[in-house]
Amino acid sequence: MKHFATRLWDAVDQKGNAAMIGLDPRPDHFPQPFGMRAQNSISEAAVAMKAYHRELLDVLAPKIPIVKPQAAFFEALGVAGYAAMLDAMAYAKELGILVLLDAKRGDIGSTSTAYAKAYFSGEACPAADALTINPYLGEDACQPFLEVAQQHQAGLFVLVKTSNPGAGLFQDHGQPPLADQVALAVHRWGLQNMNGCSWSSVGAVVGATRPAELAHFRKLMPHAPLLLPGFGFQGGSADGLQAAFDSNGHGGIVNSSRGILWAHERKDLQHIPNWQDRVDFAVDEMLQALAPVQKAGV
Amino acid sequence: MKHFATRLWDAVDQKGNAAMIGLDPRPDHFPQPFGMRAQNSISEAAVAMKAYHRELLDVLAPKIPIVKPQAAFFEALGVAGYAAMLDAMAYAKELGILVLLDAKRGDIGSTSTAYAKAYFSGEACPAADALTINPYLGEDACQPFLEVAQQHQAGLFVLVKTSNPGAGLFQDHGQPPLADQVALAVHRWGLQNMNGCSWSSVGAVVGATRPAELAHFRKLMPHAPLLLPGFGFQGGSADGLQAAFDSNGHGGIVNSSRGILWAHERKDLQHIPNWQDRVDFAVDEMLQALAPVQKAGV
Repeated sequence: MKHFATRLWDAVDQKGNAAMIGLDPRPDHFPQPFGMRAQNSISEAAVAMKAYHRELLDVLAPKIPIVKPQAAFFEALGVAGYAAMLDAMAYAKELGILVLLDAKRGDIGSTSTAYAKAYFSGEACPAADALTINPYLGEDACQPFLEVAQQHQAGLFVLVKTSNPGAGLFQDHGQPPLADQVALAVHRWGLQNMNGCSWSSVGAVVGATRPAELAHFRKLMPHAPLLLPGFGFQGGSADGLQAAFDSNGHGGIVNSSRGILWAHERKDLQHIPNWQDRVDFAVDEMLQALAPVQKAGV
Repeated sequence: MKHFATRLWDAVDQKGNAAMIGLDPRPDHFPQPFGMRAQNSISEAAVAMKAYHRELLDVLAPKIPIVKPQAAFFEALGVAGYAAMLDAMAYAKELGILVLLDAKRGDIGSTSTAYAKAYFSGEACPAADALTINPYLGEDACQPFLEVAQQHQAGLFVLVKTSNPGAGLFQDHGQPPLADQVALAVHRWGLQNMNGCSWSSVGAVVGATRPAELAHFRKLMPHAPLLLPGFGFQGGSADGLQAAFDSNGHGGIVNSSRGILWAHERKDLQHIPNWQDRVDFAVDEMLQALAPVQKAGV
């Protein structure tokens, strides 16, 4: 198997875009019939969640290179929700979509190893192609993730700068700001995981709110694939994302979650009879918005 | 229901100690017959994990006020492992042991809410009494955890200073160090969650390696219950933990995981025929080591 960064850009090239869809399932926003089915009990909600994702992934598969299941919304339904997450991961892989599990795990030593093996080894869960991790616990806490990822040719996306308004309280702390310190570590860690390519499999989450900020982080981490959150509902747009991309259109993946998942609720799309076609319409809009960004990469 | 801090000190008073046992299940360290049963497949390992915890918790229940399941080791066995974790949580509660779920979750906005509801609401999982969270994402990322915890009279332990050797890379960053900045936030957040008591339900993980350091964090967070990791195998001892405790013996809970769980492997305990009695012996040793610490609190 090729290393993660290569698989990622291959998928981006094949589908012709760098869009990622976040799977943040909230039963009160499921399309019908799944919404109705999810109403009565947690266990029925989990059954609906599993069925919904299979149909959703069928819609996404022809156009989308990578999906990002958000563990929290699955764990919210307990064991059956957790099983629905693993099913969605397995089904996405079956359809040829890469899977970045957004679980933001982080611990120390053998505990980090346990998380990494859980999601990369393929022994107990379908092997994710990549995982988000939280760096707060430091160098030796991240190292086991790096080692296990390398063994399984998997990727990591380390939280560097998040897009929420209160992110700065800790991420901007110190001089240089903490996020820069983390970015330098991500760059250093990534050098272990290049596999002779120009991109590392150690990426970063960069919720930059200004183009100059994104360019700054790109400079600090020249080889890191960047996960760019907040397209759509979180108020971000495609403008200003160019700095993440190179002239091949590689370097970033742009996430949208609710902008796609909730498309079936849009008043302006009520003339489209199926929820699947509304989702597909929103995907097309997103790809159209992203196209110039990727092409204008530096 | 009383608020978490009160429940915690009630349990400490009732059992007469502030010991916490970390449930870090590793099938290759299970006592027999569980070790044998766990060898053949992931699903058999998960069955053994569930059965083992029920017997282990029976041993711990008479003496131990609180246990700390470590999510990573359960997730390592997939859906059945996750189910074994929830079963251990439910069974501990049934036995009157408090449950601090060590999952170190952290995300933003509605995603943080989803995690908090998953583990505090009791809807899909047995309600944990408390949860560890990672503060890296900042103020508005932690706020949903605080709100949901408050609704369910649950506790939080925010990672402030961890005990691993590489923790300093980010936690010591800046002036004052980041960990101090986090401690000040924990104190501020905790004031929302005092419920008229002298202790808050917003606690902190403080893996202080020197007594002066622990005293420093106690001063920054005068109302926060402190989770003190690393007793036993991680090289910590009871010496120097006094600063966490007040004159009632409240203020800290001291965790041991492998020191207790692996007691059945100790060469010096081979004269004790049952693994349960070896574990109980190691618990007694721990409680003996802790007794003067709690009594000497300031």
